[in-house]
Amino acid sequence: MAEAAPAALARYREAVTREMQDTLRLDTRQVYDAQRYHLGWQSADGSPAAIATGKMFRPALCLLSCEAVGGDFQRALPAAAAIEFLHNFSLIHDDIEDGGHTRHGRRTIWDLWGIPHGINAGDSMFVVARLALHRLAGQGYAAQTVLNAFLLFDRACQRLCEGQDMDLRFEERESVEMEEYLRMIAGKTGSLIGTSAALGAMLGGASAQTVVLFDRFGRLLGRAFQIQDDVLGVWGVESSTGKPSGDDIRSRKKSYPIVRALETVPPSARSRLLALYGGEHLDERGVDDVIAIFNEQDIRSDAVREARAAAASAAALIRDAALVEPVGRELLALTEFVVAREA
Amino acid sequence: MAEAAPAALARYREAVTREMQDTLRLDTRQVYDAQRYHLGWQSADGSPAAIATGKMFRPALCLLSCEAVGGDFQRALPAAAAIEFLHNFSLIHDDIEDGGHTRHGRRTIWDLWGIPHGINAGDSMFVVARLALHRLAGQGYAAQTVLNAFLLFDRACQRLCEGQDMDLRFEERESVEMEEYLRMIAGKTGSLIGTSAALGAMLGGASAQTVVLFDRFGRLLGRAFQIQDDVLGVWGVESSTGKPSGDDIRSRKKSYPIVRALETVPPSARSRLLALYGGEHLDERGVDDVIAIFNEQDIRSDAVREARAAAASAAALIRDAALVEPVGRELLALTEFVVAREA
Repeated sequence: MAEAAPAALARYREAVTREMQDTLRLDTRQVYDAQRYHLGWQSADGSPAAIATGKMFRPALCLLSCEAVGGDFQRALPAAAAIEFLHNFSLIHDDIEDGGHTRHGRRTIWDLWGIPHGINAGDSMFVVARLALHRLAGQGYAAQTVLNAFLLFDRACQRLCEGQDMDLRFEERESVEMEEYLRMIAGKTGSLIGTSAALGAMLGGASAQTVVLFDRFGRLLGRAFQIQDDVLGVWGVESSTGKPSGDDIRSRKKSYPIVRALETVPPSARSRLLALYGGEHLDERGVDDVIAIFNEQDIRSDAVREARAAAASAAALIRDAALVEPVGRELLALTEFVVAREA
Repeated sequence: MAEAAPAALARYREAVTREMQDTLRLDTRQVYDAQRYHLGWQSADGSPAAIATGKMFRPALCLLSCEAVGGDFQRALPAAAAIEFLHNFSLIHDDIEDGGHTRHGRRTIWDLWGIPHGINAGDSMFVVARLALHRLAGQGYAAQTVLNAFLLFDRACQRLCEGQDMDLRFEERESVEMEEYLRMIAGKTGSLIGTSAALGAMLGGASAQTVVLFDRFGRLLGRAFQIQDDVLGVWGVESSTGKPSGDDIRSRKKSYPIVRALETVPPSARSRLLALYGGEHLDERGVDDVIAIFNEQDIRSDAVREARAAAASAAALIRDAALVEPVGRELLALTEFVVAREA
């Protein structure tokens, strides 16, 4: 059953959006139009819009982590904005790399304006993420603290690119081991979610030891988040996810279900899966065949179990930390939401 | 006549290359193979190589600026490395955006490994540039100084993306005004060259006023550099530039010669230029026709005059500054090289 989104996701949305818009305010240069479109602030023709294009999960995690260690979330807003910009930079480039034509039911930047503009709009948002982070200096943090924030942030970017590289290489391979898959998602998803929590805790004034704890918490949560994403990529409903059901199979992504299936299904089913994934093109009937094999072997249950185990490990890490309440409980609620969400 | 490259370009090459390689040392992840290939440290098959793929003009300018204000260039090496990484990030993405198959006579990353890997290798080098800059902290600079370096650097990145956006939009237009062209190259080329000089001066211990002077010096030098690049893009010789002669015309770039020609040639020649540039495809005969019109109107002389004027303005800015000799004279020699170079 779907879990209602935790109130924290809604609570920070307006403040984070305002901080992001302030970072780009008054800048009328056209390169920012594509960014504003992607973020749902504008329509493709440039007219104003206010479309919620994402859950804002990462900035909420950052700000909750800040408050959970006794910090003032307002001061950490530049980091939350930077994280959301960075996440969206990666989506803009992912859409080109994966050939994705729509996102949240809207055409992607490259689909509207071509690959060159898509690449440059992503690069530009990568830079805007850093301009957002520089605004921490205006919140009275010491230069060393801001510099530490940049180091955490840049290392997350590094892991993100490394994970993306693995993901691209996996597409060129017949099969992928579970251990490799987990390393790939640790880079592609876990690093930024871990850094969201770590940055929030650091800017909230936590000790170095607590910052490391939040980083581990976030990375486990990131693993749960990605496996649940992979479940939705196969069994998700378009009206919730904004993507057609079975989309990750159609694009033959090496996501959790196929990696798991290839290591557990009987040899005959394995051969059929490899043949379907290895061909030049996977038609709708092929997609249905793959899902049928997954369903026969109950791969979805394996995935859900794995995601829940990661979320539970994350929750266990912070359950006994002396967190400020009720924010601590909201962080725990977020771990449950991550694996129960349907979008 | 070609001017010999100033000794400064050769003098710092080894130290900058070592600093760049140290930044990536021991990292065996495959995403860095594409970067090492692009930088000439590896062949496409992964075997070691040592191919000089660029002039290393920007890092040399940075380190000369540092020494010219009395600083120790060794301490500024992380900034020089960061600048060279950033410049190469922009080349990797430019090659995709412009559809360039070769650079320095070698196949480009996207041409070898496809657009998705090309995008991600560029993103990854964008991050490596920042990891290089973080190494300033190990050189004993105060956190505030390192943070100021990041701010200069990130603003240069921002202007770079804005200039690239203008350049891409110019391709979709029939003609471009000189004023727009100059604004575009100020972003695409001038900002990073200005920041190279400004960062060097700042890390050499210069006053804020002197840092601003070096920034202006570098931006003027960047204008000269780009106009000379545009001259070489039309009249350059492949054996020197590594690109076929007339390449910028073939790709119908809105570079200095066409912008200048469209504002100065007689109406009949203007119509012919617009027809040639506006068609679906420009064949070799069309390229020759365009060059013939440029030659009739002596557009090359206009370009050379403009480039020399910018280089002379740059030189005038620092001629009376109390710079450490003989480094100050080497900086002046660099301004002459920029407009005399044939590659």
